[in-house]
Amino acid sequence: MNNFEYYNPVKIIFGEGQIKKLSELVPKDARVLITFGGGSAKRTGTLDEVKTALKQNGSRYILEFGGIEPNPEFDTLMKAVEIVHKEKINFLLAVGGGSVLDGTKFIALTSTLDDNANHSKAWEALLNRTKEIHSAIPIGTVLTIPATGSEMNAGGVINNSEKKAKLSFSNPKAYPIFSILDPTKTLTLPMKQVMNGIADAFVHVIEQYLTYPVNAKVQDHYAESLLKILIEEGLAVRTQPDNMEIRKNIMWSATMALNGLIGTGVPQDWSTHAIGHELTSLYKIDHARTLTIILPALMKVLKADKREKLLQYAKNVWHISNGNEDERIMQAINKTEEFFVQLDLPIRFSNLNIGEMDIDNVIYQLKAHNMVALGEHKKNDLSVSRQILELAQ
Amino acid sequence: MNNFEYYNPVKIIFGEGQIKKLSELVPKDARVLITFGGGSAKRTGTLDEVKTALKQNGSRYILEFGGIEPNPEFDTLMKAVEIVHKEKINFLLAVGGGSVLDGTKFIALTSTLDDNANHSKAWEALLNRTKEIHSAIPIGTVLTIPATGSEMNAGGVINNSEKKAKLSFSNPKAYPIFSILDPTKTLTLPMKQVMNGIADAFVHVIEQYLTYPVNAKVQDHYAESLLKILIEEGLAVRTQPDNMEIRKNIMWSATMALNGLIGTGVPQDWSTHAIGHELTSLYKIDHARTLTIILPALMKVLKADKREKLLQYAKNVWHISNGNEDERIMQAINKTEEFFVQLDLPIRFSNLNIGEMDIDNVIYQLKAHNMVALGEHKKNDLSVSRQILELAQ
Repeated sequence: MNNFEYYNPVKIIFGEGQIKKLSELVPKDARVLITFGGGSAKRTGTLDEVKTALKQNGSRYILEFGGIEPNPEFDTLMKAVEIVHKEKINFLLAVGGGSVLDGTKFIALTSTLDDNANHSKAWEALLNRTKEIHSAIPIGTVLTIPATGSEMNAGGVINNSEKKAKLSFSNPKAYPIFSILDPTKTLTLPMKQVMNGIADAFVHVIEQYLTYPVNAKVQDHYAESLLKILIEEGLAVRTQPDNMEIRKNIMWSATMALNGLIGTGVPQDWSTHAIGHELTSLYKIDHARTLTIILPALMKVLKADKREKLLQYAKNVWHISNGNEDERIMQAINKTEEFFVQLDLPIRFSNLNIGEMDIDNVIYQLKAHNMVALGEHKKNDLSVSRQILELAQ
Repeated sequence: MNNFEYYNPVKIIFGEGQIKKLSELVPKDARVLITFGGGSAKRTGTLDEVKTALKQNGSRYILEFGGIEPNPEFDTLMKAVEIVHKEKINFLLAVGGGSVLDGTKFIALTSTLDDNANHSKAWEALLNRTKEIHSAIPIGTVLTIPATGSEMNAGGVINNSEKKAKLSFSNPKAYPIFSILDPTKTLTLPMKQVMNGIADAFVHVIEQYLTYPVNAKVQDHYAESLLKILIEEGLAVRTQPDNMEIRKNIMWSATMALNGLIGTGVPQDWSTHAIGHELTSLYKIDHARTLTIILPALMKVLKADKREKLLQYAKNVWHISNGNEDERIMQAINKTEEFFVQLDLPIRFSNLNIGEMDIDNVIYQLKAHNMVALGEHKKNDLSVSRQILELAQ
């Protein structure tokens, strides 16, 4: 196990009926901007439930900012920053999934910059992963889509369609103060979005696990636990969509998948995300679906590098014991693909029926975003990414 | 899974050589009281290492308070509170194991009470589990004994020999701000203490796991992971005491065993601790050794109540698949006893060679401390505790 630091001060409030606790959690005299995405927060009544709770026990000033997109757009978020300034907002309450939460974190951070009129400082800050920002407006969240883990971490990913860029940041000031996880809110999600969420959480675990062994037993066991639960509950929820126990396990697993704990003291490899982000930017593919397209190809291309961990994954997650080592690794990769297919997720770009992938262009974008040395050893250059993209076609 | 709240703001700094970070972690102008136990912190050089770090990068006023006992004594801790007041201490740095950390939390909490001259308020506060205390002096810790998890939780247990009482408290103000976990510091521990630590952590997991199923898959998988790691590394460390990888896994497992995470959203049963505390108070038995004496007897007496979870424990922790259900449960209990015996831990009171247990007296003390309705259903009365004690003789 490598040396590490771990710090995660997010208060989690989990379970049915917890939204009413907003009346205690948000300061009584706060000037609150509720951020959300499309119309579903309104349609499902969650937004009303949130507002009702905020109106109890205090004299809060409440404004709404809807329309944060999946893969939240830089320009959209800058509009919220303007409202924060104009309305002297001092609390942000994000209601939605990972995109709304990520976007709200970015609003919280960049609202503390002084030059927001032309947004150039905010863009510079993002290019620098917000490392130079040392304060943020406090955030609370009400999670409605289990997937990204954003509710219990300090990171996010922001899209800029104009610049064809999808860039990540991480900043300890962006930890939500609290996150409410009410699994009943996930019942109204379209099954496609549930499957995307499971795939996203699954790959989050993989990116912190599938590298090389450092004998970190807690982290490995925990990661394998989450993978097994996501497989089991991911397959089960399709036939039992109203089973609350399954929904609860999916929601808590997705949070645990990216709250930092399984990634402490171990090498990590976020290549699948790095390459996937370019596919989302160029082709508007759902984030999770870029991951299920890239991961199997990446496993095949990097199977020598990741040999020991792939064997461990085969044994402990898929219970594969037959065949020689190479065969066991291939069985594990096949099992991974089968699992994604069972969730109706694509495993090749061609599954999407949006034409052929322009690999040169993807490589060009990876280079433009400085994604030229990927992997746990930071040695996988663009030729490796090209091999992965070719297999993922 | 039941509804829950989870909050744990402790910053963990894990690994070899991390003690030097104290120079950044403790405020530069703090008035620091270093608390520790017997002479081992001095003898091993850890105390000097801590003081050297504190003298860097600041002008801290540093005092020492040694002599906090295993099962920290109320009267000893009150002496530290007097020093805190007299010397205007504003930072407590605990260097040691669970007893030093628990005791330091109690110092931090009760130092904020106004009537410390006669200690009566502090004693009242303890009887009330410190629930009425809403502030504390900030604490940092340097952990040298992996066992209790105190480094990443807000609880503690305090002993009062005069009153023959061992009482626990939990207070969110008592979370350490940071805890440094340097596994190399565990290399000088006597093997008996290492074994005690493993048993303590093991039973912490059991108390949050061995109740009845609520389909909390993350918590169950994580708990089973910790049990398996503690078994594996507990047996391994005896023959490879200098293997740092094993020491690291033991240290991180013990922290994870009681940082609240595996206990969220599930029923808990702290009976083994409750009964064990009385044995420590009456007979001065090491805390962990009271647990290994009580747990097997408790499993036998409560095997109907805990049937489903015992079967799950048999299957997932001990990989027992042969025999009917009753046989599998008994095999799991036998395996647990065998494990403790392999660690040179007692599994019966008679193993201790300190004469016979006065069961009536233990029952009298349980009653005096209001431990009259134990277990996950709070329905196990003193007659159940008596059965457990009789089997544990």
